[in-house]
Amino acid sequence: MRFLHTADWHIGKKLNGFDLLLEQADALDQILALAVKEQVTAVVVAGDLYDRGVPAIDAVQLFNKKIIAFNLQNKLPLLTISGNHDSSERLNFGTPWFSQTAFHLHTELTQAFQPIVIEDTQFFLLPYFEPFQARLYFEDESIKTLAKAMERVIAAMTARFDPQKKHVLVAHFFAAGSSQSDSETKIMVGGLDSVPVDLLAVFDYVALGHLHNHQALKHPFVQYSGAPLKYAVSEEKQTKGVYIVDTQDFSRSFYPLKPLHDVRTLTASYEELLAPEFYQSIPREDFLQIQLTNRGVIPNLMNQLRNIYPRLLGIERLNQVQRENQLEKVKKRADVPAEIVTEFFAEMTNETLTTSQEDWLAKGLQATSKQVEKL
Amino acid sequence: MRFLHTADWHIGKKLNGFDLLLEQADALDQILALAVKEQVTAVVVAGDLYDRGVPAIDAVQLFNKKIIAFNLQNKLPLLTISGNHDSSERLNFGTPWFSQTAFHLHTELTQAFQPIVIEDTQFFLLPYFEPFQARLYFEDESIKTLAKAMERVIAAMTARFDPQKKHVLVAHFFAAGSSQSDSETKIMVGGLDSVPVDLLAVFDYVALGHLHNHQALKHPFVQYSGAPLKYAVSEEKQTKGVYIVDTQDFSRSFYPLKPLHDVRTLTASYEELLAPEFYQSIPREDFLQIQLTNRGVIPNLMNQLRNIYPRLLGIERLNQVQRENQLEKVKKRADVPAEIVTEFFAEMTNETLTTSQEDWLAKGLQATSKQVEKL
Repeated sequence: MRFLHTADWHIGKKLNGFDLLLEQADALDQILALAVKEQVTAVVVAGDLYDRGVPAIDAVQLFNKKIIAFNLQNKLPLLTISGNHDSSERLNFGTPWFSQTAFHLHTELTQAFQPIVIEDTQFFLLPYFEPFQARLYFEDESIKTLAKAMERVIAAMTARFDPQKKHVLVAHFFAAGSSQSDSETKIMVGGLDSVPVDLLAVFDYVALGHLHNHQALKHPFVQYSGAPLKYAVSEEKQTKGVYIVDTQDFSRSFYPLKPLHDVRTLTASYEELLAPEFYQSIPREDFLQIQLTNRGVIPNLMNQLRNIYPRLLGIERLNQVQRENQLEKVKKRADVPAEIVTEFFAEMTNETLTTSQEDWLAKGLQATSKQVEKL
Repeated sequence: MRFLHTADWHIGKKLNGFDLLLEQADALDQILALAVKEQVTAVVVAGDLYDRGVPAIDAVQLFNKKIIAFNLQNKLPLLTISGNHDSSERLNFGTPWFSQTAFHLHTELTQAFQPIVIEDTQFFLLPYFEPFQARLYFEDESIKTLAKAMERVIAAMTARFDPQKKHVLVAHFFAAGSSQSDSETKIMVGGLDSVPVDLLAVFDYVALGHLHNHQALKHPFVQYSGAPLKYAVSEEKQTKGVYIVDTQDFSRSFYPLKPLHDVRTLTASYEELLAPEFYQSIPREDFLQIQLTNRGVIPNLMNQLRNIYPRLLGIERLNQVQRENQLEKVKKRADVPAEIVTEFFAEMTNETLTTSQEDWLAKGLQATSKQVEKL
């Protein structure tokens, strides 16, 4: 049996104020088309269905429409959980009806221990939860951390294992690298609120949500699917997509999605950006973060550029980016003023000082020096 | 076939800051028990399921729990619509799943024209809507009022009538008395945004929500069920309940509900209110509006009384109530100062002036009069 693994839809999320509903609808349509084409038996969505506990009405409408398409129109079983961005109580509404058509949506820890069996596999759907909820559920005051809570959760799940079946965990948390991992990994994945992957060894596959990069964790059977879209400029180099997993041997393949509008950084001058031969040669409808190479003030810059680049996320001065790197260097060599100014000018402008500029600098520094001595 | 008709649940509503979830849960339990005992075939809820478009989480949980009890546990078909207090888009989530177990929840005008057939009756579930939605739906710019919109809506419904069946409309609006009704009725039910009952003549029964008093409209077959609970002190004299309607001849019976905590006005003195023999003889757990007969300031009054009357809604000075009536009289007779003061004192205190008070008043008025002459 094969299932599709996706997560972190974050329906209703905005990017620098831009609505992403069109892009999200398109990505979900691609996932559905892929699920149909690849004839998967079920679709796993590992939490953060919505971006907010009280999503906007148009987000509710989009989610409703798409799960109807998956589950009612295309008869695909859905194995879904709430994530930390979802309101479990609000999502919970109506779930007894949903499960009648194999749309399983677990939002409470108490629901995690009854596996959903599909063909050869038991799926344990563990929604996002806080340690205090495990403390109440197990009536054990010693549960203070997520790792400790997960020990108990997994033990309770293991007790329900059918040895004739494969065992898949669907969950939404920070998975910390193995106990041999370096400290950097541990910091990256969240410290106290993380789950050591070693705990997950009883499962054949762990379908995770939470981290938006599907390569966030390299592990034989613990896998983030990542989000279906880039939700930050910092993710522009990442490929977004979904996994299809075969329960025969838990081999899996990554299927990239093609975004309706990509998220990209563009480095150019104001003059280039305004030139038709430039902007007609690039996908100017994309979500663009522009690094502007010009110096000097340009009035009404954002509005002018938005006429051409309708999804312009923001403008950075390239100089400002470099200045941050530069500042560190400057602090270390505050004793050679002429050198600092010369280097600073070069880094800000990619030009060197002309002879007359060098003269002016020398005279200026000399005059300043004399003033300081007088004081 | 017999069905139960209720409306205006307003789950999540608060009364002077007091949560009513316990009372609402109890009232819904009574309705369910009645439906089961009377073996009705379906339950109609004519709008305003929630009190707000984005209900609080505990309201969502209560509604979820109760409709599971009605529809899944007791297999009762539910015929429900959204009211003006509901967010139709939010309520709409999941409805294709709900309808599989005959939990019909119509939230859009477009859904109103496909009747739900139960035994001998076609039910048309018309959610609350605004005239502009009918304008869009019928592509008719001439639709400006709700009455005009309803003409078109009813014509479209009539076209779907099965002559072999009875026809019930479930709706949520102000129904204006017949064309012969007096102007008072017309004002009461909302003027421009009302629906003349004459328009409804094609139906055998119209199950309405919106007005919380089941006696708001006296009509042979257009009926408000009223809310299941008193949601304001001004409703204290009303009886709350539900109707059970027989589709044989559309005879109907009103079944009162017994509130877990009633809403009542209590007139008493501070001394009485604090006396155990008084408060032990009354249902002091009720939602009480107290009319205090004392004059004078009583420190920390509200807190003292809340220790005994935990659901104390508010305190009125009886004097203040009377003063409002009094003010009108005073305005009309501003020319006889001694008479005004004497009468005012009597109405405020239920006492007459003593001889020395009369002396003091006469002297005071005389002195004032002299001062005025000097000016």
